[in-house]
Amino acid sequence: MGLRVGVLASGSGSNLQALLDAASSGRLDARIEVVVSDMPDAFSLERARRAGVAAEVVAWGAAPSREAHDDAVVDVLRRHQVDTVALAGYLRLVTPVLLAAFPGRVLNIHPALLPSFPGLHVQAAALEHGVKFSGCTVHFVDEEMDHGPIVIQAVVPVRDDDTPESLAARILREEHRIYPQALQYLAEGRLRIDGRRVVVDPPSPGSGSLHNPAVKF
Amino acid sequence: MGLRVGVLASGSGSNLQALLDAASSGRLDARIEVVVSDMPDAFSLERARRAGVAAEVVAWGAAPSREAHDDAVVDVLRRHQVDTVALAGYLRLVTPVLLAAFPGRVLNIHPALLPSFPGLHVQAAALEHGVKFSGCTVHFVDEEMDHGPIVIQAVVPVRDDDTPESLAARILREEHRIYPQALQYLAEGRLRIDGRRVVVDPPSPGSGSLHNPAVKF
Repeated sequence: MGLRVGVLASGSGSNLQALLDAASSGRLDARIEVVVSDMPDAFSLERARRAGVAAEVVAWGAAPSREAHDDAVVDVLRRHQVDTVALAGYLRLVTPVLLAAFPGRVLNIHPALLPSFPGLHVQAAALEHGVKFSGCTVHFVDEEMDHGPIVIQAVVPVRDDDTPESLAARILREEHRIYPQALQYLAEGRLRIDGRRVVVDPPSPGSGSLHNPAVKF
Repeated sequence: MGLRVGVLASGSGSNLQALLDAASSGRLDARIEVVVSDMPDAFSLERARRAGVAAEVVAWGAAPSREAHDDAVVDVLRRHQVDTVALAGYLRLVTPVLLAAFPGRVLNIHPALLPSFPGLHVQAAALEHGVKFSGCTVHFVDEEMDHGPIVIQAVVPVRDDDTPESLAARILREEHRIYPQALQYLAEGRLRIDGRRVVVDPPSPGSGSLHNPAVKF
């Protein structure tokens, strides 16, 4: 009854692990159906196999365009009957091909308090900018990088002696908390988008059975 | 012994009031020597008079350029032997004329978690963007708007039912706390700027007498 999630990951996938753990413990009413990586040697694929989850590669550069790459990704996701897509350290900008296949069902997590510090190397950017707080953001994905409607954010302090690594570690602990939480809101049908504001509705009384797990626009 | 502060304000000046209150209560080791407004009917001027502080107008538009306007402002500040300038709801972008007269001694407060939402109407912008946290930032002023090195930030949650007014009120309470605190750090000579990171040094053992109240670059 829960979500059928496909995770797209390019790297080691600690957020993938957080989703796998949340799903297996029951905190997240979802099954991770497949992990798709653009990098054949991504450790995310190994995490999937260890958890008994399908691990598939759609190698970057094999397709003639980003859209053709996403066509291949969508094929894999559909084959596994995925209804929700979670990006977890996925380094590719997704195209309208993927977004149109899963409208309102593609989420990403970013290690900064968006709209501050989109893009890459964000902990170093935050430190160099001298912000006193940073954090992380779960958001719906749209066609702009790190830009769509925000579901949950979490805040952490930045310390005077922080390195990019120490700040990243502090933020990562919050990422591992809020990403499963955001997906659980989606599973419970509680997310409502108004403009680009995401409202989390209160849990419905009979939320054991999920009548409308789709996001309401 | 404390700071001699000139406050520049265009509007009602609730942050000015917070500075006046902190100085008169002793929480801030400073005297507000003068309030300068570009708007002859700013309530800030009335707040100054009620507190027994000089209130001066340098009317916007009287000078032929922004630099000439700042020349007149600097004249007023120097006449009052100001060593530190605090912008409080000051709607004018200051020029190098003012910054060169008080190097490393011009501070501003902004009602957002910079670098998110610089400029005006920031609470409405934050709500429309759908951020889950906002806040306020005390920063050194440089030639770019809402841009210089950050001294203190404070975070507040954004609620689903917030209006720009309710969010502004929540942020304002934090502004009134962190602006006096930032100036007090300056008074204690504890602010050190490294690149654009501001480090707050621990209080010195004999910090009753302030040997070096200037910011160290």
